[in-house]
Amino acid sequence: MAGSSFGRNFTVTTCGESHGAALLAIVDGCPPQIPLDEAVLMEDLARRRPGSTAKGTPRREDDAVRIVSGVFNGMTTGTPIGLIIENAGQRSQDYDSIVDSYRPGHADYTYRRKYGVRDHRGGGRASARETAMRVAAGGIAKQVLRTLCQVSVAGAVMALGGIEAGCFDPRAARNNPYNFADPSRLGELDAFFSGLLEAHDSCGAVVEVRARGVPSGWGDPIFSRLDAVIAGAMMSINAVKGVEVGDGFALAAQRGSSARDEITPQGFLSNHAGGILGGISTGQEIRVRLALKPTSSILIPGRSVNFRGEPVELVTRGRHDPCVGIRAVPVAEAMLALCLVDAFLQDRAQCSGIDEGTRGFAVPGDGGDWA
Amino acid sequence: MAGSSFGRNFTVTTCGESHGAALLAIVDGCPPQIPLDEAVLMEDLARRRPGSTAKGTPRREDDAVRIVSGVFNGMTTGTPIGLIIENAGQRSQDYDSIVDSYRPGHADYTYRRKYGVRDHRGGGRASARETAMRVAAGGIAKQVLRTLCQVSVAGAVMALGGIEAGCFDPRAARNNPYNFADPSRLGELDAFFSGLLEAHDSCGAVVEVRARGVPSGWGDPIFSRLDAVIAGAMMSINAVKGVEVGDGFALAAQRGSSARDEITPQGFLSNHAGGILGGISTGQEIRVRLALKPTSSILIPGRSVNFRGEPVELVTRGRHDPCVGIRAVPVAEAMLALCLVDAFLQDRAQCSGIDEGTRGFAVPGDGGDWA
Amino acid sequence: MAGSSFGRNFTVTTCGESHGAALLAIVDGCPPQIPLDEAVLMEDLARRRPGSTAKGTPRREDDAVRIVSGVFNGMTTGTPIGLIIENAGQRSQDYDSIVDSYRPGHADYTYRRKYGVRDHRGGGRASARETAMRVAAGGIAKQVLRTLCQVSVAGAVMALGGIEAGCFDPRAARNNPYNFADPSRLGELDAFFSGLLEAHDSCGAVVEVRARGVPSGWGDPIFSRLDAVIAGAMMSINAVKGVEVGDGFALAAQRGSSARDEITPQGFLSNHAGGILGGISTGQEIRVRLALKPTSSILIPGRSVNFRGEPVELVTRGRHDPCVGIRAVPVAEAMLALCLVDAFLQDRAQCSGIDEGTRGFAVPGDGGDWA
Amino acid sequence: MAGSSFGRNFTVTTCGESHGAALLAIVDGCPPQIPLDEAVLMEDLARRRPGSTAKGTPRREDDAVRIVSGVFNGMTTGTPIGLIIENAGQRSQDYDSIVDSYRPGHADYTYRRKYGVRDHRGGGRASARETAMRVAAGGIAKQVLRTLCQVSVAGAVMALGGIEAGCFDPRAARNNPYNFADPSRLGELDAFFSGLLEAHDSCGAVVEVRARGVPSGWGDPIFSRLDAVIAGAMMSINAVKGVEVGDGFALAAQRGSSARDEITPQGFLSNHAGGILGGISTGQEIRVRLALKPTSSILIPGRSVNFRGEPVELVTRGRHDPCVGIRAVPVAEAMLALCLVDAFLQDRAQCSGIDEGTRGFAVPGDGGDWA
Repeated sequence: MAGSSFGRNFTVTTCGESHGAALLAIVDGCPPQIPLDEAVLMEDLARRRPGSTAKGTPRREDDAVRIVSGVFNGMTTGTPIGLIIENAGQRSQDYDSIVDSYRPGHADYTYRRKYGVRDHRGGGRASARETAMRVAAGGIAKQVLRTLCQVSVAGAVMALGGIEAGCFDPRAARNNPYNFADPSRLGELDAFFSGLLEAHDSCGAVVEVRARGVPSGWGDPIFSRLDAVIAGAMMSINAVKGVEVGDGFALAAQRGSSARDEITPQGFLSNHAGGILGGISTGQEIRVRLALKPTSSILIPGRSVNFRGEPVELVTRGRHDPCVGIRAVPVAEAMLALCLVDAFLQDRAQCSGIDEGTRGFAVPGDGGDWA
Repeated sequence: MAGSSFGRNFTVTTCGESHGAALLAIVDGCPPQIPLDEAVLMEDLARRRPGSTAKGTPRREDDAVRIVSGVFNGMTTGTPIGLIIENAGQRSQDYDSIVDSYRPGHADYTYRRKYGVRDHRGGGRASARETAMRVAAGGIAKQVLRTLCQVSVAGAVMALGGIEAGCFDPRAARNNPYNFADPSRLGELDAFFSGLLEAHDSCGAVVEVRARGVPSGWGDPIFSRLDAVIAGAMMSINAVKGVEVGDGFALAAQRGSSARDEITPQGFLSNHAGGILGGISTGQEIRVRLALKPTSSILIPGRSVNFRGEPVELVTRGRHDPCVGIRAVPVAEAMLALCLVDAFLQDRAQCSGIDEGTRGFAVPGDGGDWA
Repeated sequence: MAGSSFGRNFTVTTCGESHGAALLAIVDGCPPQIPLDEAVLMEDLARRRPGSTAKGTPRREDDAVRIVSGVFNGMTTGTPIGLIIENAGQRSQDYDSIVDSYRPGHADYTYRRKYGVRDHRGGGRASARETAMRVAAGGIAKQVLRTLCQVSVAGAVMALGGIEAGCFDPRAARNNPYNFADPSRLGELDAFFSGLLEAHDSCGAVVEVRARGVPSGWGDPIFSRLDAVIAGAMMSINAVKGVEVGDGFALAAQRGSSARDEITPQGFLSNHAGGILGGISTGQEIRVRLALKPTSSILIPGRSVNFRGEPVELVTRGRHDPCVGIRAVPVAEAMLALCLVDAFLQDRAQCSGIDEGTRGFAVPGDGGDWA
Repeated sequence: MAGSSFGRNFTVTTCGESHGAALLAIVDGCPPQIPLDEAVLMEDLARRRPGSTAKGTPRREDDAVRIVSGVFNGMTTGTPIGLIIENAGQRSQDYDSIVDSYRPGHADYTYRRKYGVRDHRGGGRASARETAMRVAAGGIAKQVLRTLCQVSVAGAVMALGGIEAGCFDPRAARNNPYNFADPSRLGELDAFFSGLLEAHDSCGAVVEVRARGVPSGWGDPIFSRLDAVIAGAMMSINAVKGVEVGDGFALAAQRGSSARDEITPQGFLSNHAGGILGGISTGQEIRVRLALKPTSSILIPGRSVNFRGEPVELVTRGRHDPCVGIRAVPVAEAMLALCLVDAFLQDRAQCSGIDEGTRGFAVPGDGGDWA
């Protein structure tokens, strides 16, 4: 597989360049009889859409998704679900200057070295435009989790340009232009962004996603550990350069006596492990963080080379987000949902039907949901 | 696939419990005509072996690997390579107390909840013993990379119990009991470990692994980005809870103007991205860091529950490492090698044979190797 | 994977119901720099299209395919290729009578039993309409084989309603309404078909597909033997119930002394094995036959049951082929091309770059091509 | 994947050459809590073992299988099951004459062309010895099917050297040296085999395998149709050159009015389709036939070439079966069991838990079992 498919049982395959005719996705293995229509998918797509926040790119994309198969009378049929998002509003001429030059920090150079040919318009396949289909497919995954498992997923930005959230409030995040987890810091963020835009610069971000309602027992040992699958999924998102589960890197400085999550009949006493032990869910909240590097496309000139190895100085025009992390929140949610629904189906394949009594006492997990 | 296989073209499948009869691995898709014998694999296995450092567990395992197929007259034949490591020296009675109790921070609870049955002896499949086969299979991957691609992989511990390395010197690391990257900190480490052992406690670690000689063009876009595959591979190692590529989380606090790696005809001016852009290698050094949580198995009593939900207090006897990070170095190297050889073969499948001229100028990468 | 993807390195994923909005396909892993446009794909699509022969269904489908990604300036870029065929001209009301009844010999019953819900219109996903995308994707595979390997694929009908071809002439087959391999039997076929149509009945067929130019060495041992992969591919085509490689079932009645293909420096003395030994190509012509059952959709009433288990008598209206074998020829060619291109890439991944001298003498294969 | 793995959810991976140290298999994804020990697997292994019938090779292999992981206290744990069969009793010197010559009808030539190197002893990986592990892994699959699904699998030889069985009686087949389905033909077979052995020749065979108790709904549409998966599995067995499901090639000469299986509330009126419609099981008996070519290893000299392209005349010494079809019966049963258990788990992943009422009336299937 050359990288365009994700998932073992609930498998998403996508294609489509930024400035091509359309993006497609095929979702295979979805359980039948799940209520589904375009409106279910549009909510998250709207959150990802450029122009959806005051702080994103001024570029507008409709991102209207069309379901062309696998759904009949408002319900999944078990056959593969086909999705189309037509591209519209591209301004390909913005990219003429980079036909044969490589924007620093971009995939321009690596695509050319790999394939010897590339669709340079808008970044082609390497553009974050591709994540629209992740969000659409993730919307189907969320719907399956919601319908069959009472699992919900939510995310928010936890740090922007050095400003850190003091709490994780995904509902508040949906109502501010930074998708920021902590509404008490909005004033600081406004000031920071004013300076950033004035400097024509961009910034990185930390995003957190969580899932509630995941029962104990999802995930597989060894190479398909639930956290391994999630880490791969998150790192596959454009601009992500780091992933943590639970306390992540902070655990490296801890001692065993404080880092292990003790258990009582009433529940776990802590959740440093992020809801996963030995690659299998504990029933606690699943917590994942990802670090996104700053957008490389800025108006500040940068040094680079062209196809012939000559030095060039590039200014990246086009309409770019000063912080890709903001719009990455629904993308990270989508990837987490895809991981979870796949783990759910995999567990059902191998382990359903066994005597519940043999599983022993279920430690109470975290209550509530993120819907 | 239930999680015991890794890789698309160079595929490793493993099995074996900590206290079972043996560990097995089957490596499928290895190129033919690669020189290989047991001695090639034993060097890394010796580095991973318990008792190999003064600071590891006093438990001794021989870890002698036997190649039973796929090699003829000292050379791979292209057919699957079978590996056996017999288990020896287990003291299963050490684990009788946890037949029906769940050690906090361990997979005891999650395995029981998933399968309703488990081989509790020594942690069974969830034991780090499983990583012996990763190291053996990774040794084959290293040999392929060395023979066909002049790629070398090296790792070292970068932080232990809050003590951080100021440099990355993998050769020095091989000669100290902590696999520590910075030999100037050994005195501090000795003092720290004395205190740790006295307290019967354990500590976490940060491990770094790097690869040199990787050409530009390895890796696939989207879901199989080289960094995504590496992140999944690293997070699949026992106790790992965080992964960074390049500058990782530090990039989240950066600005685009400083974070992008500018290019000149003489080479890249920096390597914040860790040698991967858009999921495809740039030709620079590949840099990956992983955070390992402290060993949960300590002599300090911990609160937990048993199969029936009754509270228990557990002391984890057995012979455990005070810091799993130390012996994780060859494991992380093995996983990186497996990712790279798989990306090499995948790239060869899709992109070999095209006119080199169409690939354009090759920016000089990092020289040297880690052998 | 739930069955909508085919191939390991050159992977085709499809979706789409007979009377849904559109069929989609995503082809992942295609080598870059292969000349490609819609016209390349339309030739085979035209051969598969209903109404393309006098003897097929009177139903007309345009089957115009649109490439929406993965191709730039007339050349593949290495990123996934997206294909859309919009549906048009469906008459869904023809199928109202089977909303809750199961046509004998159809998948109506099994889909309902599996999923509890189905898109009954035109057979939904179980319709042969789905094969349009196999032909389109196979057209890309043929183009890769042609461009990079000088391999060509051709097929023809070898038996229809008991009338057997005495030769295999795929060029002649393209010029008769039965895609029949032996033009000397056309008079007999006309007479047979007149009677068949008068009786409102249908008939089965045997189709043969061959490939020329395949070098020795493609295919993998054991479970992915080239003939195993081909057998699975052929049996996955609607209505196929038997597959033979080389002499197939006739070999079961042979003796070893006559069945083995002896070798001379000038070439093989026979090709009973169909160009594959031990699952790996010999360099000879690859020969595959498939048996297709008669169309189950006929106007002769048949006994069946409905959703509630009540007996019903069904007449299958709609516009159906009296022999699905005729239009199956380009479908079988497509599947053979997909198998071969996948084997080519797989072999390139594992075995390219070795010293040609170690491979020994190459027995001359069959010359010529089928283009 | 390079071909050594089979199955999506219940995955078997094998390695091992004929004259190497051992064969290994790893079975991943097996449901937990299935009773299992070596004795369960030995019954089928004994049926496959050389020397098990008077008519097989005089070569003796013990084929004692050892379970080294995944089973604890006589029960599967859900973790991967490791199997070892040590090789013993090889006489490698028998094969010295073919170090650089290619036996006609064998994989000697194709392996050399593919890999440039091969373990020639006893045929190496291309030897039927490899099927021992299929039988062992299939034994686990049978045990799962028996324990969780009341599905049983049985096979017998249906034709040998032109002598055809008039009935399918697998119990009788177990008690005659030909594994022949029809005990009334044993006298004829004895006479035929006497002549065959006298002539130092070999013969082909047709084997049939059936499954009873498979419910409606197993299998996936399109590329993973249950019959497609079975066809690939059967064609992957050494010497198989043809596969039929249900009436197979005979259907090609039928008309729709006779070939479709009509349905009544009391059951299907026929089973021409072999228990599978649209790739999904109907609940009827599953019927599969495979054609095996005659053993190529015979004492009658054959023309061939060597590594340098020089003509040679070869007599294949060693201890070979005059008819590989006889011992292929348990191998074909094993492959059918592997296909079925995989389809069972796949169906459970996607379609379990839906309201049974939505699936409609279940047509009564075939009763009884083959145990």
